[in-house]
Amino acid sequence: MDFTVKQIAEYINGEVVGDENEVVNQFYKIEEGKPKGISFLANPKYENYLYKTESTAVVINKSFEPKSTPRTTLIKVEDAYSAFSTLLKLYESVSNQKVMGIAPSAVVSSKAKIGQNTSIGANSVIGDNVEIADGVTIAANVIIENSVKIGANTQIHANTVIYANTEIGANCVIKSGAIVGSSGFGFAPNAEGVYDSIPQIGNVVIKDNVSIGSNTCIDRGTMGATYIGEGAKIDNLVQIAHNVTIGDHTVIAAQTGVAGSTKIGKHCVVGGQVGFVGHIEVADYTKIAAKTGVNATIVEKNTSVGGNPAFHIKDYLRSSVFFRQLPVFEKRISALEKDKNKIK
Amino acid sequence: MDFTVKQIAEYINGEVVGDENEVVNQFYKIEEGKPKGISFLANPKYENYLYKTESTAVVINKSFEPKSTPRTTLIKVEDAYSAFSTLLKLYESVSNQKVMGIAPSAVVSSKAKIGQNTSIGANSVIGDNVEIADGVTIAANVIIENSVKIGANTQIHANTVIYANTEIGANCVIKSGAIVGSSGFGFAPNAEGVYDSIPQIGNVVIKDNVSIGSNTCIDRGTMGATYIGEGAKIDNLVQIAHNVTIGDHTVIAAQTGVAGSTKIGKHCVVGGQVGFVGHIEVADYTKIAAKTGVNATIVEKNTSVGGNPAFHIKDYLRSSVFFRQLPVFEKRISALEKDKNKIK
Amino acid sequence: MDFTVKQIAEYINGEVVGDENEVVNQFYKIEEGKPKGISFLANPKYENYLYKTESTAVVINKSFEPKSTPRTTLIKVEDAYSAFSTLLKLYESVSNQKVMGIAPSAVVSSKAKIGQNTSIGANSVIGDNVEIADGVTIAANVIIENSVKIGANTQIHANTVIYANTEIGANCVIKSGAIVGSSGFGFAPNAEGVYDSIPQIGNVVIKDNVSIGSNTCIDRGTMGATYIGEGAKIDNLVQIAHNVTIGDHTVIAAQTGVAGSTKIGKHCVVGGQVGFVGHIEVADYTKIAAKTGVNATIVEKNTSVGGNPAFHIKDYLRSSVFFRQLPVFEKRISALEKDKNKIK
Repeated sequence: MDFTVKQIAEYINGEVVGDENEVVNQFYKIEEGKPKGISFLANPKYENYLYKTESTAVVINKSFEPKSTPRTTLIKVEDAYSAFSTLLKLYESVSNQKVMGIAPSAVVSSKAKIGQNTSIGANSVIGDNVEIADGVTIAANVIIENSVKIGANTQIHANTVIYANTEIGANCVIKSGAIVGSSGFGFAPNAEGVYDSIPQIGNVVIKDNVSIGSNTCIDRGTMGATYIGEGAKIDNLVQIAHNVTIGDHTVIAAQTGVAGSTKIGKHCVVGGQVGFVGHIEVADYTKIAAKTGVNATIVEKNTSVGGNPAFHIKDYLRSSVFFRQLPVFEKRISALEKDKNKIK
Repeated sequence: MDFTVKQIAEYINGEVVGDENEVVNQFYKIEEGKPKGISFLANPKYENYLYKTESTAVVINKSFEPKSTPRTTLIKVEDAYSAFSTLLKLYESVSNQKVMGIAPSAVVSSKAKIGQNTSIGANSVIGDNVEIADGVTIAANVIIENSVKIGANTQIHANTVIYANTEIGANCVIKSGAIVGSSGFGFAPNAEGVYDSIPQIGNVVIKDNVSIGSNTCIDRGTMGATYIGEGAKIDNLVQIAHNVTIGDHTVIAAQTGVAGSTKIGKHCVVGGQVGFVGHIEVADYTKIAAKTGVNATIVEKNTSVGGNPAFHIKDYLRSSVFFRQLPVFEKRISALEKDKNKIK
Repeated sequence: MDFTVKQIAEYINGEVVGDENEVVNQFYKIEEGKPKGISFLANPKYENYLYKTESTAVVINKSFEPKSTPRTTLIKVEDAYSAFSTLLKLYESVSNQKVMGIAPSAVVSSKAKIGQNTSIGANSVIGDNVEIADGVTIAANVIIENSVKIGANTQIHANTVIYANTEIGANCVIKSGAIVGSSGFGFAPNAEGVYDSIPQIGNVVIKDNVSIGSNTCIDRGTMGATYIGEGAKIDNLVQIAHNVTIGDHTVIAAQTGVAGSTKIGKHCVVGGQVGFVGHIEVADYTKIAAKTGVNATIVEKNTSVGGNPAFHIKDYLRSSVFFRQLPVFEKRISALEKDKNKIK
C-alpha cells in the first residue's frame, strides 16, 4: 500500500522536513533502507546511516540535531521509536485482518460454546464442552480437546494441540506446533526396573497476556495444575514439565527446560538452553544466563547466576576466565614444585 | 462425579475413620487440598499436612499412627500410595473413554488393515498397506504414511507424523507433535564443500510399552533400523538420530540428543539436555546427569557420569566445586610465587 | 522387488564374480547382512566382514584384492561407495513415487498459483497469493499461509507450517513439524517490568537446496528477513531466531539455537546443542564443537572452537583435561603451602 509522507506524518503527529508528497510503501531498518522505504533513527550513535540510507523518509526525534543535511525526507516527532512502533502496529493489524467464522472443514462439537467475532481455521477440531470467548482466532489444523477454556482475543496458531481441560486466559498467543497439556513424564520403576506410568490427571492453566513459542511443550500437572503466570513470555522449543509454576511477567528464551514441580518466580529473565532440575524454587527477579544448569533453590531475589551448577554470575565469569588458564596454572604449580625440590 | 467416602473405601478395600457419607469429587495433593477433595499421605515426613489439609478425605496406611486427631475423614488401607494410584487409574480410564470408529473427515486408504475397537480421529490420514492392530487409538490430524505397522492398544496422539515403514509395538504412547521416521541428517560434502544428501532408506522400529514424548524426533536408519527397545520412556523434545539403538527400559529426559549410530544400553537413566556423540556405546544401567556431554563409549555397567566431556559423577562434582574456587587457586599460587621470590 | 545380481551389475557397470543369477531384494550394511541382501565394502578396514556377511552380494572396488575367497557373490566396480549410492538413490526415487495432484480434502485458495507436476496432500491448506512452482510436493496437513513462494521441486513434509510471506527456493526439503516464519521473541519491558510485544513484520527467505529438520523453528525478521543461505543443512529441533543469517553450505546439527540478528558465515560446521548469543558474527569455515556457547564474534576464518564461553578447540580440550585434575591441583598447592610454612 502506498502512502504519502504527509499522510504518515499526520498519523504520528510529526512535522515534515522535505517533500511531503513523496510516496512510501515499506518499512526498513535505516541501514538496510531502499527507495520508497521508511525508517527511523532513535539512537544518535547511528547518525551516519541517516546520510547513507536509501530510504525515502526517516522518522527522527524532534530533539535530534543532524550534523549535516540528509538527502531523505525527515518526519520529526517527540519519540521516534515509539512513533515508528505505532506505524508498525498499524501495519501489523491491517495485514493480519482475519477471516471471521468457522471454516467449512473445521470439526466443531455441537457441545462447544463459541463466542462472537471468532475465527476457526480449516481442519481444526474443537471438542465437547470447549468454551471459546469473543475475539479468539484459531488457525488451521488446531486440535482443541474437550473442556478447554480460551479467553477473549487469544490467538492459537496453526497445528497446535491443546489437550483436555487446559485453561488459557485472554490476549494470549500460542504459536504453531506448541503442545499444551500433554501427559507428563511420570513413571515409577518396579523391582525389575520396568517402568509403569503414573496417572496424570491435572491440567495446564495459562493466565492472561502469555506468549507460548513454536513447538514448545507444556505438560499438565500430575494432580493440580502446571501454571503459567500473567504476562509470561516463553520462546520456542521450551519444555515445561508437570506441576511447574512460571511466575507473572517472567521471560524464558528458547530451548530451556524446566523439570517437574519447580517454581520460577515473577519477573525472572531466563536465557536460552537453561536447565532447571525438579522440585526447586527460584526467587523473583532472578536473571539466569544462557546454558546455565540450575540445580538448587535460589532464595535471594534479584540475583544473576550462570554456570552448571549455577552460581553468582560474576564469580562464574571469573572462574570461566581462569578455566582457560588451567594449562598455565599447571605450569606455575610445576615450577613451584621444581623450585622447592631445588631448595631442599 | 460425586462419590461418597464409603463408595471409595469399598473400591480400595479401606476402613473409614470419620463420616463415611461425606462426598468427594476431585483429587488433590495433600498440601493443596480443598473441600470435596481426596488426598493421600504415604510419607510420614508430611504428617503435618494431615492436620492442615482442607481435603475432605485422606487415604493413609493402616500402619500409620497419627500423633493427634485430624479433622478430615481417613480411609485406612494397606498401602496408601498404591490405593490412591488405583483410584487415579480408574479416574483416568473413565475420563479417557474414547469414541470408537473412524471420523468422517479421516482419510483412510482402502489398502490399510484396521483392527477391532480402534479409533481414528478427525482429519487423520492413513496410507496404503498400513496395519493397525486391535484397540489402537489414533487422535486427530495424525499422518500415518504407507506400510506403517502399529501394535495393539497403542495410542497415537494428535498432530504426530509416522513416516513410511515404521514399526510400532503394542501398548505404546506417541505424544502430540512427535515425528517418527523422518530422514536423518546424512550429507556428504563434495570437493567444493557443497553437501549432497545420502539416501536414507531404513526405518524406525519401536518395541512394546514405549512412550515417546511431545515434539520428539526419531530419524529412520540410513540402512537398517533406528531401534527403541521395549519399555523405553523418552520425554519431550528429544532428538534420536539415524541408526541409534535405545536399550530396553531406558529412560531419557527432555531435550536430550543422541547422534547417529550410538547404542545406549538397557535400564539406563539419562537426564535432560544430555548430548551423545555418534558411533559410541553406553553400557547397561548407566546413569547420566542432566546436561552431560557423552563423547566416548562407556564400557563399565552401572556407573554414573556427569560433565562435558563426561566422567565419573563423583569426580565431576568434586571438580565442579574446585571450579568455583579457581580465583582462590590463582591467589594461592601467586602468594607462593611471591614468597619464593622473597626467599631467593 | 527382486533383482538378479546380473541386472544390478549392468545398472552400475560392474563385473560379477560368482553366480550372476542369484536374487537380491534388500540393502544391508555389510556387518548386518542377510540372505537376499546386497551390501558394499569400500573401506579395506572392514574386510573381515566380507567373509562373515550373510548378504548374497557385495559391491567392492575393482582395485581391492581380497585376502581369501568370500562365499558371497561380488560385483566389482570402479568406486564401490559411489556405485552403491547410485543403487540407493534409484531405490529411493522408486519408493517415493508421489501421487500427483491435489487431494480432495486439501483447501487451496483460488488465488494461489500452482505449477505443473505438483502434489498437495490431504487436509493441507494453501493461502491466497501463494506461488508454488513446478514439481513441488506438499504432504498432508501442511499449512501454507498467504503470499508464500515455493521454488521448483521442493518437498514440504507433513504437518509443517509456513507462515505468510516466506520465500523458499528450489530443491529444498522442509521436514515434518518444522515451523517457518512465526513471529520472533521480541518484547520490550515497560517501567513496571510488563512486556509488550514488538511488531514482527519481516519474513523468512530460504535459498535453493536447503534442508530444514523436523520440528525446527525459524522465526521471521522483525523487519527484513531471516535468511538461510543456499545449500545450508539444518537438523531437527534447531531454533533460528529473527533476523539471523545462515551462510551458504553451512551445516547445523540438532538442538542448536541461534539468537536474534546473529550472522553465521558460509561453510561452517556447527555441532549439536550449540548456543549462539544474539548480534554476533561467525566467520566462514568455522567449526564449532557440540554444546559450545558462542558468546562473541569470531573474526578469523577456518578456526575450531569449543567450550562455554567458546575458545579455540585445542585450548578448550587442554583446559578440560586439567578440569578433571582440579582436586589434584588443590593437593599440590596445599603441599606447597605446607612446605613453605615449614621452611619459615
